[in-house]
Amino acid sequence: MSVPKDNPFMEKIVSLCKRRGFIYPSSEIYGGINGFWDYGPLGAELKRNVKDLWWNATIRRRDDVVGLDATIIMSPKIWQASGHVDTFSDPMIDCKTCQGRFRADQTGEIPCPKKPGKCVSECDGEKTAPRAFNLMFQTYVGPVRDDSAIAYLRPETAQAIFAQFKNVLETTRQKVPFGIAQVGKAFRNEVTPRNYTFRSREFEQMELEFFIKPDEVVEAIAGRVAKAGEPVPNSQLPTPNSDWGWEAWHKYWVEQRLAFYESIGLPRTTLEEYWQKPAELAHYARACVDLLFKFPFGTQELEGIAARSDFDLSQHERFSGKAMGVFDEELRAAWSQLPREKQDELRRRYYEHRKLYLAKMARPGETPEQVDKAAREDADGLAKGQYLPHVIEPSAGVDRLMLALICHAYHEDQMPDEKGRLETRIVMKFHPRVAPIKVAVLPLLKNKPELVKTARQVHELLRPWMNVFYDDAGAIGRRYRRQDEAGTPFCVTVDFDTLGEKPELKDTVTVRFRDDGRQERLKISELRDWLLVKIR
Amino acid sequence: MSVPKDNPFMEKIVSLCKRRGFIYPSSEIYGGINGFWDYGPLGAELKRNVKDLWWNATIRRRDDVVGLDATIIMSPKIWQASGHVDTFSDPMIDCKTCQGRFRADQTGEIPCPKKPGKCVSECDGEKTAPRAFNLMFQTYVGPVRDDSAIAYLRPETAQAIFAQFKNVLETTRQKVPFGIAQVGKAFRNEVTPRNYTFRSREFEQMELEFFIKPDEVVEAIAGRVAKAGEPVPNSQLPTPNSDWGWEAWHKYWVEQRLAFYESIGLPRTTLEEYWQKPAELAHYARACVDLLFKFPFGTQELEGIAARSDFDLSQHERFSGKAMGVFDEELRAAWSQLPREKQDELRRRYYEHRKLYLAKMARPGETPEQVDKAAREDADGLAKGQYLPHVIEPSAGVDRLMLALICHAYHEDQMPDEKGRLETRIVMKFHPRVAPIKVAVLPLLKNKPELVKTARQVHELLRPWMNVFYDDAGAIGRRYRRQDEAGTPFCVTVDFDTLGEKPELKDTVTVRFRDDGRQERLKISELRDWLLVKIR
Repeated sequence: MSVPKDNPFMEKIVSLCKRRGFIYPSSEIYGGINGFWDYGPLGAELKRNVKDLWWNATIRRRDDVVGLDATIIMSPKIWQASGHVDTFSDPMIDCKTCQGRFRADQTGEIPCPKKPGKCVSECDGEKTAPRAFNLMFQTYVGPVRDDSAIAYLRPETAQAIFAQFKNVLETTRQKVPFGIAQVGKAFRNEVTPRNYTFRSREFEQMELEFFIKPDEVVEAIAGRVAKAGEPVPNSQLPTPNSDWGWEAWHKYWVEQRLAFYESIGLPRTTLEEYWQKPAELAHYARACVDLLFKFPFGTQELEGIAARSDFDLSQHERFSGKAMGVFDEELRAAWSQLPREKQDELRRRYYEHRKLYLAKMARPGETPEQVDKAAREDADGLAKGQYLPHVIEPSAGVDRLMLALICHAYHEDQMPDEKGRLETRIVMKFHPRVAPIKVAVLPLLKNKPELVKTARQVHELLRPWMNVFYDDAGAIGRRYRRQDEAGTPFCVTVDFDTLGEKPELKDTVTVRFRDDGRQERLKISELRDWLLVKIR
Repeated sequence: MSVPKDNPFMEKIVSLCKRRGFIYPSSEIYGGINGFWDYGPLGAELKRNVKDLWWNATIRRRDDVVGLDATIIMSPKIWQASGHVDTFSDPMIDCKTCQGRFRADQTGEIPCPKKPGKCVSECDGEKTAPRAFNLMFQTYVGPVRDDSAIAYLRPETAQAIFAQFKNVLETTRQKVPFGIAQVGKAFRNEVTPRNYTFRSREFEQMELEFFIKPDEVVEAIAGRVAKAGEPVPNSQLPTPNSDWGWEAWHKYWVEQRLAFYESIGLPRTTLEEYWQKPAELAHYARACVDLLFKFPFGTQELEGIAARSDFDLSQHERFSGKAMGVFDEELRAAWSQLPREKQDELRRRYYEHRKLYLAKMARPGETPEQVDKAAREDADGLAKGQYLPHVIEPSAGVDRLMLALICHAYHEDQMPDEKGRLETRIVMKFHPRVAPIKVAVLPLLKNKPELVKTARQVHELLRPWMNVFYDDAGAIGRRYRRQDEAGTPFCVTVDFDTLGEKPELKDTVTVRFRDDGRQERLKISELRDWLLVKIR
């Protein structure tokens, strides 16, 4: 089931995730299905929290980003425009001896199914030349299975955002710069799913397309284009400014995303920024930063933040025949005030950018004259306040992030048991914001009705506000340990002092902290607000 | 795009949904794709709220239900066990004249593509005999496209719950009766998607499988089986009891689900209970209630609540070869105390139920003797505390519920404008719990920095706790109208009194109620808690 082998730490993670109901192999009773994983009760809660936090940070807490929830199956033309139909593929070879099919670039790693101890490239089997294998899952929509009915499961959530860009623009009060964000499932028919849930065939993405003005437009309006500043400490994120060009916006989103990871419990020291080198960039990308996490199986990508220029909107404009540009009153007004030379310079730069793009993406039969004319028309639009927005795309994987959070949370330490003897415990040190269960409410003893009644009252008091777990089974120390493994940051114990055995402690409870076992006494009446601050 | 025609009310709904960004046709710039709809910014928020409320009511606020988040693509064997591969199909006919393919049971309604004004059954085209057309979307997993790689997009979320039943049972501390619930996408290749988002090809479900003891087990433990009582008023939902059999549990869930709809703004008067007649029931179902909503295009199903006996777990046990039964210490202990005649009677009833099922689902080649032996072994399990749980399944559609909420919320009424003249307004009277935006914060005037500053402070104060919209563009009356159309229940206006023009009103704001335009003065310091009570 594509779990890393010979990695004792990962074995512990996989074991804990199964044992405590974070992650199960999909369809396990039928032998599983390679590259698919289910989230159990604790995993489902963790996943909801991660997605909610992202949605809140990216959309609800900002004025300039709105949400979208588009379908997984869309018109296949979207994937022609995006390039996925033609180029989203891996090179594959077939072995005529064992009938296996393998990724051509991995034959040195994949074990030969027939010759133990040898990899595919070492065996004697006769191989075909590499052929492109498209990673999109294909299906048919409608009653007739012919070419006109082919559709794909989306391999990313981003394209729906571009396809609905004009609808969103026209039905909200947003103006560029603004973003559209989406969370949802995506599918890639990976030839070799691997590293547990890290590279699976069905996964979830959290993607933001943030639309900005091209630098020429910024310069026309603001008189200058501010470059990205020096790295800014997390506590002082820069405030967007009207003179920001793509570089400043790109850097801004890198910082925002790092701050997000920090806010849910992944400190910067666990992450690496990898700035792609010019040769590595996709042809339309101006820059791309990968945020990497140090997984137990290697340092791997959590998120990519790409400056994609106007590639996506351009493609959809050309393939759909629908204008994807915006009208910007500010630009129109500013343009008329610019000196003639400035107008000419900006128009020329815009024209050159458009021509480069249009020439590169020209369809068969398009002549250089046609390309030149189209680029010239695009540049002429500036004077009328028209342009195609550029885009900054922070694109994160939910499942990868969950795996990072789980790996980072996993600790073994020594804690005294009921009798004061040190014992090894497993504790999942999730940030309270992502923890599946926020607080466990425990009556000290199960067989004292007064304790149980008060514990149930505390339970009901907190329940409308957070995910609470009630547990009265077994010794209190064992109940703590169970919550440690689930990653519950706080345990609230109702004891005889709560009932008034010591009058000064009446209506107070013990709050026990997961990470260090420390305990604190709190009034029941203050409990809700005390917890809410910590978990939000 | 399968929107109801000649239905003026639905035309208004569709228009409002597009204009305000609730719902767009998927892939609209490419001409759309029949049966697929996207949710825009307001729709995405509404949908999140609906799903969150269901998740909270069904899982987080109960002790006896846990969540699951399984994959859309699962082992195809699951769909063999569930019966979907063999029987989840519609009868289709082909017309040899127009080459069209139509649902055989709808030829009297579907217009003939060639003969305007005639339906398919009236045209002269030569038709084939009806053939079964499976509604599951099919794809291939892995690099090789052959029969062994066929997989399906799940047509319902329920089966994943059955397939993971034992994993969940073993990794949580739940005991029967308990439930497993899931929210997620499902896909059905409907031949004729219709009624806007009501019957689409990609949709979302909220399903609970609630596992209960068979009546024989209840009787062994509790000495009796309580029948379902008379309908219970909503305010007094019955508390589950250990003597409840399937009828009492089934009725309980019907009441729970009605109470849920009421809690999010669909009063009982808008819903109908339809108890399926014996002849309509699926062969394994003991009862099924459809909860219907009076849509503008007809009274149609929102949710089905079925008593499915032990059919699903039985099927997966037989197809996977993995034991799906539970061990129940209470049963084992109770059984040994029963008089011999009672044991015999319960064993006989359990045996007869199992035999009936096993005979009906027997595979080719299975002999009556084998069936009898298997049923007898199942019945012998009772004495050891073993049995297969039965199940009650409340299964709701997210998109249908959203459409019901939208249709129910839509109102046109007369409101005085700025100058006191009555004008017609469109207002979406969503319950505050589901409303996409909970509150709008509006400075009375945009060009007074003090008003704007204070309004921004109020905005920031509320934002961590709810979805807030800030709007300073245009006359205050027009801003109210925009929020009315979005369904925002409360507008908070910061005016000169807020700043202290009337000292006794300093630091207060006006709260304006969407439904009747009434206004109330509230302290800023009390605003958050005042709103939180209303929206939760």
